[in-house]
This record gives sequence, C-alpha cells and structure tokens, in this order.
Amino acid sequence: MRMALELAKKGTGRVSPNPLVGAVLVKNGEVIGSGYHERYGEAHAERNALASCTESPEGATLYVTLEPCCHYGKQPPCTLAVLEAKIARVVVGSGDPNPLVAGKGIEILRNHGVQVTEHVLEQECRELNRVFFWYIRTGLPYVVMKYAMTLDGKIATATGASKWITGEQARAHVQGQRNRYTAIMAGVGTVLADDPLLTCRIAGGRNPIRIVCDTHLRTPLTSKIVETADRESAPVILATCCQDAERKTLYEQSGCQVLVTEERDGHLDLNDLMQKLGKMKIDSILLEGGGTLNWSVLNAGLVNHVQAYLAPKLFGGRKAKTPIEGEGVRTPKQAVRLRADTMTVTRLGEDFLIEGEIEHGEDNDSGTDEDDRANCG
Amino acid sequence: MRMALELAKKGTGRVSPNPLVGAVLVKNGEVIGSGYHERYGEAHAERNALASCTESPEGATLYVTLEPCCHYGKQPPCTLAVLEAKIARVVVGSGDPNPLVAGKGIEILRNHGVQVTEHVLEQECRELNRVFFWYIRTGLPYVVMKYAMTLDGKIATATGASKWITGEQARAHVQGQRNRYTAIMAGVGTVLADDPLLTCRIAGGRNPIRIVCDTHLRTPLTSKIVETADRESAPVILATCCQDAERKTLYEQSGCQVLVTEERDGHLDLNDLMQKLGKMKIDSILLEGGGTLNWSVLNAGLVNHVQAYLAPKLFGGRKAKTPIEGEGVRTPKQAVRLRADTMTVTRLGEDFLIEGEIEHGEDNDSGTDEDDRANCG
Repeated sequence: MRMALELAKKGTGRVSPNPLVGAVLVKNGEVIGSGYHERYGEAHAERNALASCTESPEGATLYVTLEPCCHYGKQPPCTLAVLEAKIARVVVGSGDPNPLVAGKGIEILRNHGVQVTEHVLEQECRELNRVFFWYIRTGLPYVVMKYAMTLDGKIATATGASKWITGEQARAHVQGQRNRYTAIMAGVGTVLADDPLLTCRIAGGRNPIRIVCDTHLRTPLTSKIVETADRESAPVILATCCQDAERKTLYEQSGCQVLVTEERDGHLDLNDLMQKLGKMKIDSILLEGGGTLNWSVLNAGLVNHVQAYLAPKLFGGRKAKTPIEGEGVRTPKQAVRLRADTMTVTRLGEDFLIEGEIEHGEDNDSGTDEDDRANCG
Repeated sequence: MRMALELAKKGTGRVSPNPLVGAVLVKNGEVIGSGYHERYGEAHAERNALASCTESPEGATLYVTLEPCCHYGKQPPCTLAVLEAKIARVVVGSGDPNPLVAGKGIEILRNHGVQVTEHVLEQECRELNRVFFWYIRTGLPYVVMKYAMTLDGKIATATGASKWITGEQARAHVQGQRNRYTAIMAGVGTVLADDPLLTCRIAGGRNPIRIVCDTHLRTPLTSKIVETADRESAPVILATCCQDAERKTLYEQSGCQVLVTEERDGHLDLNDLMQKLGKMKIDSILLEGGGTLNWSVLNAGLVNHVQAYLAPKLFGGRKAKTPIEGEGVRTPKQAVRLRADTMTVTRLGEDFLIEGEIEHGEDNDSGTDEDDRANCG
C-alpha cells in the first residue's frame, strides 16, 4: 500500500478534479503490475496497473488507495475491470465518499467472491485526497491558508519588510504546494505591495491558476501577474465587483479572465466567488493572502486547512503585521480551531511547518451532496 | 547515564545556583549506589552515590552527568572522594565550564590511573545545566522568555481576552517551569491588567521569586502579588526607579522587597537590574511579560531562551496583541535568531511547545569569566 501511495502522488497537479489513486498488483509475493491515475480523463489506476502486468493477474491481490468505482463516468467502472481480471483479493486504503460509490464498489466485489480488506493505511490514503473528498461533496474549492511567520507571529517587520522570513527549504516547499493545488489566491493589496508572480518555479511544474481578489479592479495592468497572464499556460482570474466594461476589456486583452461576483458590505462576496470558482472546476486554492484577506476568507468559513511556516526568529514590533488581522474574534472561546488529530509538524531546514485542518461544525464523512463523480481515478 | 540524568533532575528548583548533577555507581553489571545533588550547600551527587553503596565501590564504574569538581567550595572536591573510594572508571556527561575545573577534574582522575570516558549523552547533560553554565560565566540570570500564542501569533483577542489560549497540559507544563527557574518576571502592565499570582501551583512545588518591573511603582498594594508577598515562602521584588521612600516603605511593610535600579530613557535600566539580580544569586528568570516588556528585555540582549506555547487555534484581529511588540527590528536580517541546533518541538495535549536558545554573538563554551564556582553539585 505504501508503494501504491507513492504512485498515487505522481499524479499530483494533473488529475484535478479527480482523486489521486495508486494501485499495485501482487502475485505469489511479487509485484506483477502497478499504475496510477496519471491525468484527468485518462485511464484509472486499476486499469493502468492491470495493463502493466508482466503475467496474468488471475488470482492476484490488488492494493489500491481508494475504493474502486462502480459506475460509468468518463471511464467504465473499475470494479468490472477487477472482476474481468479475476483478481482474488482487493486491499483498499480509504472508502470513496461519493454517494454513488460509498461502499457499493466494495459490496459488488464481495458479492462476486472477491476477498476485500478495508482501511489499510486509511489515514494516509484519506489525507492524499482530502481535496477531492471535500470538493466532490460540497462543490467548493478546498482552501489552504498558507503563511510564513516568525516565532513571535509576524509576517513582516514593523517597516513592512518581509524578504525573507523563512529559509530556502521552506520556500521550496511552498513552490511544491503551488504545484499541488489548482489555484493560488492573493489580495490586490499584496499585488500592489509586492508585485509577486505567484507562479510555480519548479522545473516542469504546473502553474496554478492565479486568482486576485480585487473588489475595485485596482490591479495594475503593468503588474507582473497581468503581464505574465496566459489563458493556457499561466491563467489569471481577477475577481471583482467592478462592472466597468471598458476596464474589464483592458484586462481581458492582457490575457486575464475577469470574474464579477456579488457585492457584500462593499467587498466582493467570497461565498459567491468560491461557488463560481467551484463551478469552474477549481477544486483547490492555496490562499497566500495578507492579514485582511485571510481574515475575510477565514471568517466566511471558507478555509479548510492552515499551513503556518514558522521561522526560528523574532521581529518584535507593535506595528508589525500578523498573518490574520481584520476584526478577529472577541473571546478565546470563539477562536477558529484546528482539529487536534490532523495537526502535524514538519521540519524544513531551520524552519517548521505546522499544519492542520480547520474544525468545521460537521464537515466530515457523511456528505449528502448528490453530485456525481466524473471519474474515480 | 540516563538514570543519572533522571536523578539529577530531582534536584530541580533546590540546588540553585549550583548545577543539577546525578551519579550512579555500577559494579559487575549491577547498580550498587546512586545519588544526586539534592540541595544547595549539601553533599554532591558523587558523595551521595558513594554513601548509598550496598557494597564496596572499589573497582566500580561511576556515571556522573557533570565533570567531578577538583577544588574546595562549600564541599571538598569530588575527585578526592572518587580516588579514596578506588573507583576504576568514571563516565562523564558534560565538562564543567568553570575555568577552575574545566578538564582539570578529569585530568586529576586520569593522572591517578582512573579510566575516564567523556561526552556520554553530552547534549542532554549540558542541556540539564544550561542555566548554571550561563550564570557561572556571566553572573547574569539565564532568562527564559515564555509566551502562549495562537497559530496566528496572538496572545489575546482584539478585545484583550486571553483566558485561555492553551489547554490544561500546556498550562501544567508552565507550572513545572515556574518550579524550575529561580524567579519569574512580569511587567506592571500585566499586574494591572490580570492581577496574577505568579506562584507555582504544583503540590509541593517551590514558589519562584516574583519580580515585577515597575518603573513608577504603580503595583497596587491590594494586588494579589503584594498581598501574598512573604520574604520566606513567596518572595516579591518590585524593580523600580521610584525613589519615594514613603511609598517604598508601604511595599516593604507588605513583605515586598523594593529594588531601585538606574534609569534609562525614562524606564528602569534592565541591564542594571539583571546585574543586581545576579548578585542576589538569582541564576534564572522565567519572563512572562507582555509584548512591551518582552521586547525591552529581548532588545537589551538579555534573553537566553524562548519558549513559545502554540495553540492550534486562530484569533485574527489587527488589534489583537502579539507576544513581542515595542519598536521591533526594521529588516528581516536584523531579526533576533534562535539557534537551529537547539530548537525542539514538544506536543503538550493539543498544543505545541516550540523552544530554543537565542543566538548571541559569542556566548558559547569558552567563558573567560574568572568567577569561582561555589559548589560543583
């Protein structure tokens, strides 16, 4: 299963909005085939593994990170492929939360005499696809709020300087995240202050769709983001409430997409924006906002996961900016909490990455969404 | 050596300003004696271990966390006791930084035919006595800056509420720290805002000496700190620039000690204060200040160690307080850095403790201070 997990990860950034899935076939103690879901719309992991077999898969054991699908999407059901190949046993990592599958894939296999073992390395397998699990149920992008701060909670010095907080290894890790999630979001304030590129600078990496929250369409046409906008290779979405057709055209001529959202309290309505982005098949967003945007998205209940990169240094400064600002909560009891069982600490050179999932009221497991899943992996 | 380390820790809070030392005697593969330095002025670990022997220590191996002393302090040299007992081999954790010992203890043993093995679990043994190692060299208290903050760097909500940031296990850990260090320091702002007790609430624990930085002597006579002041069991020091004899007398009648320091830029001179506290045999201080005091002490170069308790929650709030405020540094390069090799992360229930030592220019190892060490442990 570890091998299947590693294979699954190879699809990172390519299969969205499908899940990452890896599969390994073992017969007489030897690996006779393996595969993963490589690209959206193409064959699933199970079929890739079967196709790679060096001998007949009859009687073999299939290790697969996600429950095989049992319905027709862009691909025929994987349960059928498993039965046709006369696989004797299937070892499954995590179940599929899609109500059209949700145990039915496993049931079909069992009813046809296949031995099924569930919940093997389940947490790792679930973790692999937390984006997919969320998106398939809610239709909303999975939002990862990312920031880098000092051990005294500052994202810049009192004078506003922020280059650099963390070291090379942590910054390289961020680049990997930009390759992992479908889109990256920043506020116009960040664009005006830092003029960032927000591309993925890994060789061979995929550029995330860059989304700028820009209520009044203040992003300069000469900013790096607009100048590098390309609908194919480096898409840019300007989310705004501005209805000025002339201004809109200027951005569109520069290769940007202008997405007009509802207005709410004088700002763009983040809930409306997320729904629109979800419908555009954007399943995940890395939120690299400043304190104001971060608070707005968090307060709207739209953040799923927090990644705090911590540098072992201290800036001090009453006026130094912190990662989440805005109004804030009034009492400690109203704090937004992260789920203790999801918290991890990773050492990245001299820095630390502390991350975990936001505790929502009841966002776990029992999705009632009737959306079909186009493709099981 | 692990056993000796555990024994050494039993002296925590009792041996100051001496080091914590543990010793175990092993003969024919069996422990025949063990001991630790239990209380300042009393016998050293080596002698306690020898006194506890169940058979003759002749030919035994002595495991001791710190190099045995070789000079007369309040106790005769331990090297003498080792030689008299005809110990065959001595296994040493860390060397003694005191120039009066500094390898000479080991040299004496070797010259008398005792086999000596050094550097066993050295880092743990050094860590055990980092307070002592600092204090013996500089005469200044070892200052541990402690704060509890959210994952977005807040020590209170925007309205000032701070109860509680961390959970029970983290707060119990803080109580253990109050028992470990000789004194605790807070600013008058904290006293006015929270009216804290700042005592150690562990059953059987020792109260730290409570120090309030109070430039203008504003601590209320009715505050819990003043009301519980007791020169013997719960000492309180008010550090001030205020020379008002009448006011001073009022506090002294309440059991407090008033310590007048030099003035610097309208505030008490922290360098002068630390020197005075060092002379009063206060070897260590747990700094539980607010953002202003924390910055002042940090900026004066007087902090040795940082303990950041991190709660997996987010407050947000542009106006919410952060652990270190004041002016702050201007550029990231001017940041106060923590030494990467000293950083540790400890999980305490749902919270994390991230700690490490402040990087000073050249504060390590090669002390030139000629201070005698009164007692080697």
